Amino acid sequence: MQETTRKTRRPSLPEGRRDAMRKLAAGAAGALASGAAFRADAIAPLAVPAWTREPGAPLLSPAYGVPSSFEGDVIRRTARAPAMPGSGSSMTPLADLFGTLTPNGLVYERHHAGVPKIDPDQHRLVIHGLVREPRIFSMDDLVRLPSESHVYFLECSGNTRTEWKGPSGLPVQLTHGLLSCCEWTGVRLSTLLDEVGIDPSAQWLLAEGADGAAMTRSLPLDRIMERALVVYAQNGERLRAENGYPVRLIVPGFEGNTNIKWLRRLKLVREPEMTREETSKYTNLLPDGRARQFVFEMDAKSVIARPSAGHRLKERGYHAISGYAWSGRGRIRSVDVSTDGGKSWRAARLTSAVHDRALTPFEADWQWDGGPANLQSRATDETGYVQPTREALVAARGVNSEYHYNGIQNWRVDESGEVRNA
Amino acid sequence: MQETTRKTRRPSLPEGRRDAMRKLAAGAAGALASGAAFRADAIAPLAVPAWTREPGAPLLSPAYGVPSSFEGDVIRRTARAPAMPGSGSSMTPLADLFGTLTPNGLVYERHHAGVPKIDPDQHRLVIHGLVREPRIFSMDDLVRLPSESHVYFLECSGNTRTEWKGPSGLPVQLTHGLLSCCEWTGVRLSTLLDEVGIDPSAQWLLAEGADGAAMTRSLPLDRIMERALVVYAQNGERLRAENGYPVRLIVPGFEGNTNIKWLRRLKLVREPEMTREETSKYTNLLPDGRARQFVFEMDAKSVIARPSAGHRLKERGYHAISGYAWSGRGRIRSVDVSTDGGKSWRAARLTSAVHDRALTPFEADWQWDGGPANLQSRATDETGYVQPTREALVAARGVNSEYHYNGIQNWRVDESGEVRNA
Repeated sequence: MQETTRKTRRPSLPEGRRDAMRKLAAGAAGALASGAAFRADAIAPLAVPAWTREPGAPLLSPAYGVPSSFEGDVIRRTARAPAMPGSGSSMTPLADLFGTLTPNGLVYERHHAGVPKIDPDQHRLVIHGLVREPRIFSMDDLVRLPSESHVYFLECSGNTRTEWKGPSGLPVQLTHGLLSCCEWTGVRLSTLLDEVGIDPSAQWLLAEGADGAAMTRSLPLDRIMERALVVYAQNGERLRAENGYPVRLIVPGFEGNTNIKWLRRLKLVREPEMTREETSKYTNLLPDGRARQFVFEMDAKSVIARPSAGHRLKERGYHAISGYAWSGRGRIRSVDVSTDGGKSWRAARLTSAVHDRALTPFEADWQWDGGPANLQSRATDETGYVQPTREALVAARGVNSEYHYNGIQNWRVDESGEVRNA
Repeated sequence: MQETTRKTRRPSLPEGRRDAMRKLAAGAAGALASGAAFRADAIAPLAVPAWTREPGAPLLSPAYGVPSSFEGDVIRRTARAPAMPGSGSSMTPLADLFGTLTPNGLVYERHHAGVPKIDPDQHRLVIHGLVREPRIFSMDDLVRLPSESHVYFLECSGNTRTEWKGPSGLPVQLTHGLLSCCEWTGVRLSTLLDEVGIDPSAQWLLAEGADGAAMTRSLPLDRIMERALVVYAQNGERLRAENGYPVRLIVPGFEGNTNIKWLRRLKLVREPEMTREETSKYTNLLPDGRARQFVFEMDAKSVIARPSAGHRLKERGYHAISGYAWSGRGRIRSVDVSTDGGKSWRAARLTSAVHDRALTPFEADWQWDGGPANLQSRATDETGYVQPTREALVAARGVNSEYHYNGIQNWRVDESGEVRNA
């Protein structure tokens, strides 16, 4: 929903939902005859619970707050043991999140040599190469420059790789959880480049991290200049250590690994440097044996988060279907939802303001008849690109690729209400 | 900056800033002659720091992330000991935040009887009174309903009460820190009221919390219906215990205490119920002895967060001035900044998308000449309302009011660079 439609009143709820709500409410009230019409005097006052009868916990416990103890299962999880210490990933619990943002404590991780502990007072960022004046910036220097704040998603190019060869059986956290969305604050790359003065022959930018892997990628200046940011804050506070503290690159819409964390060096160059990460890694093998290189933008994609694999529908009737859509090429234009495995589709509601290159939550109503169902979502972005079926994606790219899987996800519901990735 | 202006390239930096940056960079590089022109070969490569020479910390440490150990001072703080256990407030560290959002761990607290520990499976919300069908909702019921996500600030009506009688000497966290901004997700109040059916005679809504204080306020339906939300998530995850877990009311732009936490009851009524919190508390005493009652909207306000009291300017020349503006009556239209105590003003840049009733960060450039200065900011909202001087506010309201102080804040800079609330 765009900001401009905020004043629109929601239409009335469908009758099926009303019935479902009524039944639930009756169950909760306990004393009511099921299905009876409600009257103003028909429900007993709520009992006063224990937590209202006594004072609660005191203030400032703790001075930096933590989630409710009832939410202890909402954590990052990893799909498999890391190949070596410090290398690997942890994934965002999408099925338990709401809205457009990922709280900092749940932003996914992907490290090549662990999380360095960097003293911000000692850290420096150098900009050099084809520039008029190479420069070294301290963190104080960076924070003094004009800043901007924008909401952008981040997605690992390997997200959903589990589904290339067919349904993996895994839950949404482990299929789609290399995906998060934050408000980022920092300096435009173009502001920094204005400071050093670019030589007209500079066409690419090499970005290098200060981690033990010295993670390094080459980026095409003309495709990143308009939006790229050098950021020091996420969701209102300084970056978290595992997200690049004290400073990282954000290249909106580009595959996660190009958003170099713990940024220490930007070099202006004529040609890509052909680093390890863009030759032996992060290329996409096609069926004919050739590889696609420098595939940067994450194409439009979506996934249903509730209900999804591992959930169980308790009863027939009304259920809300909700999930996320995103595109590395701009705003989400629309999301369609199917409950019959893609035979028929209908438009979902977008339930927040739609930002450029940000997670966009969607919802749709569904009356479950108690039979088998196949739940799918399909995103369309502002360029008109439509998220492909798995079959169309495989026909074009084969099954040897590790990266950029964006096929439509299917969640299968059986008669017991169990939801599976099958 | 509106979304539509994103493509605008920033103007070049003022020369004073360039000079300051150059000097800093030279200091960082160490080996350079101060003030000398840079050449492409004029800076030595950065030394490889210790944290690049060895693997970092492993993944999943912890599964729910925490801030960098270098950011241990960025915590909520309290201005004074609470009057009784569980009653009091803790404040958001505005001088250390960035962008529009407050991370959940730093959202301000104001409790009347501590933080209850509420089991979400047992919690119920009842809607009753002048309705066709009183109803009881479980948390599952609420999450099934159509949801929306919006970014809104929250401000305690007592925020900045310290400044009524003149400068308090306190830092910005303790003068303005009863202020936070989150993305909230939940159900429109109007959706819930559609479910129960409102009697046309219902003009007010009584909202009651499940805490030990049974915090209770009456709210005018016609002024809240368009925007009020019953929310269960903030910044992407379920509400924090201290912010109302598992469900609270959000009344965008209204004083904080009306956004009832731990919401258990909504009663549709003809007239305000004249609860304790709107008779003996939360009224505003005027000079003639009368009190303003039901003053809900927080008027437009702003404050400079950097530099602010307790900071020290290290050198003359370029400094960025940054802060926050907000209004309970709509969007921020503009922010002006003065460095001469309000004699002259110039427009600040708004550095994020401008949302309705949300914190709006601003920035301005400043060349400090080394002399005394008085830094002030002044917000104007979309209704045309201009934040008043302290003098104008006191002339209208006197100094006996506890609430709704929104005067222009002055930070005094002396020749040593020290910044004071004086």
